[in-house]
Amino acid sequence: MKINNIPRTSIWAIEAALGSVLSQDRAVGIIDQTLLPFAVEDRILRTVDDIAEAISAMRVRGAPLIGVTAAFGLAFAMRDDPSFENLTTKAALLAATRPTAVNLAWALNKVTNVLITAPANLRAELAWHTAKDVAADDVATNFAIGQHGLKIIEELHHKLQRPVNILTHCNAGWVATVDWGTALSPIYQAHDAGIPVHVWVEETRPRNQGLLTAWELREHGVPHTYIVDNAGGHFMQHGKVDMVIVGADRVSGTGDVANKIGTYQKALAARDNNIPFYAALPLSTIDWTLKDALADIEIEERNAAEIRMLRGVSTKGTAENFTILDAGSPVANPGFDVTPARLITGIITERGITGVAELHQWQN
Amino acid sequence: MKINNIPRTSIWAIEAALGSVLSQDRAVGIIDQTLLPFAVEDRILRTVDDIAEAISAMRVRGAPLIGVTAAFGLAFAMRDDPSFENLTTKAALLAATRPTAVNLAWALNKVTNVLITAPANLRAELAWHTAKDVAADDVATNFAIGQHGLKIIEELHHKLQRPVNILTHCNAGWVATVDWGTALSPIYQAHDAGIPVHVWVEETRPRNQGLLTAWELREHGVPHTYIVDNAGGHFMQHGKVDMVIVGADRVSGTGDVANKIGTYQKALAARDNNIPFYAALPLSTIDWTLKDALADIEIEERNAAEIRMLRGVSTKGTAENFTILDAGSPVANPGFDVTPARLITGIITERGITGVAELHQWQN
Repeated sequence: MKINNIPRTSIWAIEAALGSVLSQDRAVGIIDQTLLPFAVEDRILRTVDDIAEAISAMRVRGAPLIGVTAAFGLAFAMRDDPSFENLTTKAALLAATRPTAVNLAWALNKVTNVLITAPANLRAELAWHTAKDVAADDVATNFAIGQHGLKIIEELHHKLQRPVNILTHCNAGWVATVDWGTALSPIYQAHDAGIPVHVWVEETRPRNQGLLTAWELREHGVPHTYIVDNAGGHFMQHGKVDMVIVGADRVSGTGDVANKIGTYQKALAARDNNIPFYAALPLSTIDWTLKDALADIEIEERNAAEIRMLRGVSTKGTAENFTILDAGSPVANPGFDVTPARLITGIITERGITGVAELHQWQN
Repeated sequence: MKINNIPRTSIWAIEAALGSVLSQDRAVGIIDQTLLPFAVEDRILRTVDDIAEAISAMRVRGAPLIGVTAAFGLAFAMRDDPSFENLTTKAALLAATRPTAVNLAWALNKVTNVLITAPANLRAELAWHTAKDVAADDVATNFAIGQHGLKIIEELHHKLQRPVNILTHCNAGWVATVDWGTALSPIYQAHDAGIPVHVWVEETRPRNQGLLTAWELREHGVPHTYIVDNAGGHFMQHGKVDMVIVGADRVSGTGDVANKIGTYQKALAARDNNIPFYAALPLSTIDWTLKDALADIEIEERNAAEIRMLRGVSTKGTAENFTILDAGSPVANPGFDVTPARLITGIITERGITGVAELHQWQN
């Protein structure tokens, strides 16, 4: 997608400085997401330690993007020491950077499985190309999600004959992936196809990922309005929302959707106002072993500092972290919630769109 | 209620400095709420202009408290010039300080009606005592609300045999009134009666009045946990909320409750989890002429700065306003929403507790 009218991806391979094809010159570029949306700064990562630091410090975030970044980490590790021992050590190091991210383990396994049977002298080259494949697959998957989801928006526009109002929660946009995003991919593709859309962007306390969504949409020229999480239901009551689309952290085989805290409340409001509610995600997000997400998923309790502190720009114009709640009151900070399948209109993946009752058709 | 273990009210009459009974020495004290909860600073108001400034600058806030404060404003006006002309001019001046506050007009009318037929030379004295009556009535009303609401908490405790978990949204606490608050009055009285309670305090973006609620509860020693607005539904799903109690800005004769933005979403989550949902309010909040609040109440669109800016403490330790969303993305900021009567378990007023279907019994 675009920043300042220039097409960008959230991570990119730097192949050959000065025309060289030597693997020593290989690197990856990322946009440092800890500074977004207050500043857009690229950062070049050249070693497995750079990669590990970028993931733990959340310079890259979003389940799909973390997986891709970690894959490049293994490639750097293999360039420096292609031994089996180094492969397992560095895979473990990378896996520990964000222990709860399912896609991180998935991507590391994918690269490791390719390398494990290969001779050591080929591992550097194989790892690099596999990492690039993981990145390219992510783009293709998200593009396909967008192509399928686009049809829903197109039909709504055809029916309503006015801009389609879409509400989203959190950031499931292109910066959470390599490109396109999951929930935002259909929106970008509708916009690019000339279908008029307007997005209600929810702030998404405590981490305010709505800032990223608003910034993405603004840079790509998609009309949108930023609202607090409390306001979504109100706009639904007043006919200002035609559909809701969110991403997902984990989906049960029965269609329960674990996603950013607050998603459940939004699904309730959508149901109360007969508004279709979709989750958009790669098939790899579905955990087929999971039958009852509400009972079986342990909800991650995150750091209280996420609630007590917030990043903002002071009157002096500098971005810094402010304390908005002091230590005197205890805080609870569940990172996500579970929306029961009964509240989900449909699941959008790279394979198509399905109701939750038919989700099992994709289990193979 | 208590601050630093000392019983306080949010406004108080200062009758007689140095033992004097001269009306010139009269003043009122307030807690400057623009500085809460980062600092507790009293402020003495001595003139009608002081009062007008305190209301417009939101040094006092909360519908009941604004009304009481304005009543004292008229008393100062009458002390300085008891003419009929000054009465109407200053009543209009005070009414304009917060044009949407229903209780402000109600309190000004109450005082004006007492003064209008009185001889000019008695107006200063009458106005002062009427203002004190309005303040005392507010305390008595809120105390009665608490006595009735306390019974619900008592019954829940009896049934559950453990601390009762109560969720509240926004601040309907003692600082929004003269004392006790509306939604928090039953909680204070339960706590004071030795019934164990724990309060889930929702942050209440955009103005984060949850900070006031958390501060109030902390100062009074009531166990509580601060959460973001997105998390309320999650805790309800997991059996961590036994009842919800909120205040109200305006209630229709049919039981629809207009309250702080986000209340509707909370009522939906309560209903989805069979959790009782109560609104606590003085009878004067009920607008008997209103039949369908969702259709008939025009929702106040508030300043975008409430979303873009937030007060916090910088790394240097100073409290200041900082920007969390720049001007690049448009913002919508509805101040309140309407919870339909069908989602309300009961209404608590100074007269008792009733289901919405029986609300009309109090219309006289």
